[in-house]
Amino acid sequence: MKLIKKAALLPSIKVQGVDVHIGSQLTDLAPYQATFIKISVLAEELRQDGHDITVIDIGGGLGVDYGEGQTIPLISEYAQIAKQQLQHLDCKIIVEPGRSIMANAGVLVTSVVYLKKGESREFLIIDAAMNDLIRPSMYDSYHDICSVDISTDDNSCYDIVGPVCETGDTFAKSRTISTCEQGDLLAIMSCGAYGAVMSSTYNTRLLVPEVMVKGEQFSEIRKRLTYDDLIGSDSIPQWLNTKAAK
Amino acid sequence: MKLIKKAALLPSIKVQGVDVHIGSQLTDLAPYQATFIKISVLAEELRQDGHDITVIDIGGGLGVDYGEGQTIPLISEYAQIAKQQLQHLDCKIIVEPGRSIMANAGVLVTSVVYLKKGESREFLIIDAAMNDLIRPSMYDSYHDICSVDISTDDNSCYDIVGPVCETGDTFAKSRTISTCEQGDLLAIMSCGAYGAVMSSTYNTRLLVPEVMVKGEQFSEIRKRLTYDDLIGSDSIPQWLNTKAAK
Repeated sequence: MKLIKKAALLPSIKVQGVDVHIGSQLTDLAPYQATFIKISVLAEELRQDGHDITVIDIGGGLGVDYGEGQTIPLISEYAQIAKQQLQHLDCKIIVEPGRSIMANAGVLVTSVVYLKKGESREFLIIDAAMNDLIRPSMYDSYHDICSVDISTDDNSCYDIVGPVCETGDTFAKSRTISTCEQGDLLAIMSCGAYGAVMSSTYNTRLLVPEVMVKGEQFSEIRKRLTYDDLIGSDSIPQWLNTKAAK
Repeated sequence: MKLIKKAALLPSIKVQGVDVHIGSQLTDLAPYQATFIKISVLAEELRQDGHDITVIDIGGGLGVDYGEGQTIPLISEYAQIAKQQLQHLDCKIIVEPGRSIMANAGVLVTSVVYLKKGESREFLIIDAAMNDLIRPSMYDSYHDICSVDISTDDNSCYDIVGPVCETGDTFAKSRTISTCEQGDLLAIMSCGAYGAVMSSTYNTRLLVPEVMVKGEQFSEIRKRLTYDDLIGSDSIPQWLNTKAAK
């Protein structure tokens, strides 16, 4: 309250709203309920103090099911709670529901490069890697992985790994999926959020193309990077005379 | 041996060398010594079996000091051991010393955006982030961080963090460096390896320019990405009539 009072006195600041973000990948509405009550109280106090509160940003954080079967509240339930707690304020409500909209709208399609039988486990080496989707390497995140060919009935247990030169280039350990052969296509699910935006060209790997699909229609909406794109903007200084440098 | 015999019988395969890679960021030469002895024995056995072994790739893995004061063997010591164990074979020796050459040849220069005093610690928010250098976030790697202005004598203890929307966007915790003010330049050291090559445009952050420096000379050798580069290759399908989609 002290800070807002101070801010309101500054000539270039107009206090007009409150903004909150309580976390990521939440699967329970109770913390939202508690938060919305708190910011509702805050907004009313601010109004009583003479601030013209017209906007409330309730942030994001609503979780998605990454295929582990977690129960995720419906967006309509989330909206209902927001409405119950905030509607009486008659404010513009801003929401930031990126992951919950996008995550399950995207898949990473990859093909099986090689099957490698170890003594105790079998490796499925795919042509996608940690540079394309870093979540499993970075956060140990679970992503559902399934065969594009749904006609197979046999299942096998694999460690599913990419071709990059790091142990961390692992998408799944001891994962049971349809039995695969070299060349089979797999879909790594739930890649619509924190997928392409976190991708890199590590190991001189070209960013994969992005394809939008709607029903029977599909279009490439971002082309595959080329090696010229990747190294074309590198340049060697004129003063770097390699002979002289020797 | 069985596999090599099989390979040698294939019409398109000529067995001509052995290749080994024993790990990354090694700070002790003993495992190299043991490895070089093993591959020397293997190469001799292969020759006795009639294979014309002319190449030995001894891989990489020699560590670097990331500023924690670790003792790292000299490259000349490493070479000496390789020579002792492999010279008698009179083979072409291939080495893969990427990190040990490059890591300490690169720094990431960044400026202090804001100082934020918490109750128990002070945050130094810099304009570099996990997308520019992912090693601290991803592997909890240590990188030395120092003020570019070496005239300051005062030290302070900071949590040094980037501006990306993740707790993981942290370069160092409780790190004592020269006392900083907003706008000061810092150098994050040892970024020449696994730095730019692992960078991404996460949070719509533009890849930073790369500058080569030699003595008093310097040149930009890779330009800063532009927003046009970043989003310019996105396209919207003609069939996506947003009005109809509504």
